[in-house]
Amino acid sequence: MEIARTVEEARRIVRGWKKDGLDIGLVPTMGYLHEGHGSLIAAARKENARVAVSIFVNPTQFGPNEDLARYPRDFERDRALCENMGADLIFHPEPEEMYQGAQAFVDIGLLADTLDGAARPGHFRGVCTVVSKLFNIVQPDRAYFGEKDAQQLAIIKKMAFDLNFGVQVIGCPIVRESDGLAKSSRNTYLNAAERAAAPVLYRAIQHGKSIIKKGMPAQMLISEMEKVLAAEPLAKTEYVAVVDAMTMQPVDTIEGAVLVPLAVRVGSTRLIDNFSFAPQG
Amino acid sequence: MEIARTVEEARRIVRGWKKDGLDIGLVPTMGYLHEGHGSLIAAARKENARVAVSIFVNPTQFGPNEDLARYPRDFERDRALCENMGADLIFHPEPEEMYQGAQAFVDIGLLADTLDGAARPGHFRGVCTVVSKLFNIVQPDRAYFGEKDAQQLAIIKKMAFDLNFGVQVIGCPIVRESDGLAKSSRNTYLNAAERAAAPVLYRAIQHGKSIIKKGMPAQMLISEMEKVLAAEPLAKTEYVAVVDAMTMQPVDTIEGAVLVPLAVRVGSTRLIDNFSFAPQG
Repeated sequence: MEIARTVEEARRIVRGWKKDGLDIGLVPTMGYLHEGHGSLIAAARKENARVAVSIFVNPTQFGPNEDLARYPRDFERDRALCENMGADLIFHPEPEEMYQGAQAFVDIGLLADTLDGAARPGHFRGVCTVVSKLFNIVQPDRAYFGEKDAQQLAIIKKMAFDLNFGVQVIGCPIVRESDGLAKSSRNTYLNAAERAAAPVLYRAIQHGKSIIKKGMPAQMLISEMEKVLAAEPLAKTEYVAVVDAMTMQPVDTIEGAVLVPLAVRVGSTRLIDNFSFAPQG
Repeated sequence: MEIARTVEEARRIVRGWKKDGLDIGLVPTMGYLHEGHGSLIAAARKENARVAVSIFVNPTQFGPNEDLARYPRDFERDRALCENMGADLIFHPEPEEMYQGAQAFVDIGLLADTLDGAARPGHFRGVCTVVSKLFNIVQPDRAYFGEKDAQQLAIIKKMAFDLNFGVQVIGCPIVRESDGLAKSSRNTYLNAAERAAAPVLYRAIQHGKSIIKKGMPAQMLISEMEKVLAAEPLAKTEYVAVVDAMTMQPVDTIEGAVLVPLAVRVGSTRLIDNFSFAPQG
């Protein structure tokens, strides 16, 4: 496994692969890898001759009052995990290498205005920009993203299509702890009491899944799920929503394929989760 | 020479070239090709194993009150010229093929806020977006742009660097008519009287070149050039500016390398031209 810390080093390695006609899978991450990332690397390993993992805590997707500085980092552990999982390359640049004097950015309209985009202004611009850069540097055939960040996945699929990146964007299922909490690097922020409270997101999802059906008013589902969340004193609901699975726009009634995302603060930590539902027939 | 009208056809051809290890030069155009474009194709032909010319009147770079509908088109003439100049591929998509339902766009900050960016809001967003798409579709090693559109050239260089496109962006000198008028597809809009008046831009440039020197206040140069333009009754000056050659921001005094761009309406036709100046020592 090679480690590239500059764009030029990464390009040199990728050029070699391209010359040999090898297809490339990219797993973009912010590091502090967990089994969720592991499942993405495993999927990439299965489907590509070469696997690149990027580890970059991307400053442009954090708001001014967000957790950029305290975002957890442990490169040595990440390196070992990538090596064990058979990655061929870690791309691990410094922010200056990626953004010195940068003025160009990639944005997306409607899809980014709702949900996490509304809660975190500029977040998806930062995501689209860094993913564009990674696509251009690594030139992957396939790129792997977790379904936990469902809006991000929808946006990157749309961006890759709209800008003709020629990269197949692949979503992988949410990986959960045994009590249902979705794996996330941010789970490390939780103290013991918060950690015990955090599975309330999953309980809300389980309840939502048990009652959702075609023709149901979205507001009914939302209220039911909010009740579950409200029962947990340490949890403060930011949103529960029912949106069109493609456009991320709210729906009134559950008719077509929908995504049901939620964002909840447990203590000061913002956790997200979601489930999808497609009516039969 | 092949002609691709869809992204997929272009990709198929490019894939073949890449497989054979051939380097690719791209000349992005809006068609109605003149000797200016010809010089770009010639430069690309000289430096690349394969040359692609895109011919696409890009709707997203035209404002609502601009000349999208009347922009001149003559594909058969363009096709013949490309063939004669030894191009290997024309990429000639319809707007729907490029933009159906598109929401993603590429933007650039400071560089796009001045000059033509101020006069044509959204123009450079459209340019950056379509050039990003063309870069992703054609995957060129080198791309060729005319120095007539100097701000566009600076912006595309910056965008290619910032977003790590890995494309070398090459500017080619302005090609002029015998009376000095810069070649432009828009020159066809001029009636006989306007065409006779249009070389006033070149006369202003010649005058500017004759007096510019290190330490000169920018406003002095601008006033002198504006005087030349004002002497032509059919010409209405939109701007004459002195800007930093890299950042496109106005300078007060001529110290480092500058660009001196001008935009002038001759009748209802908006013409642009420019010259560069770098003080010795």
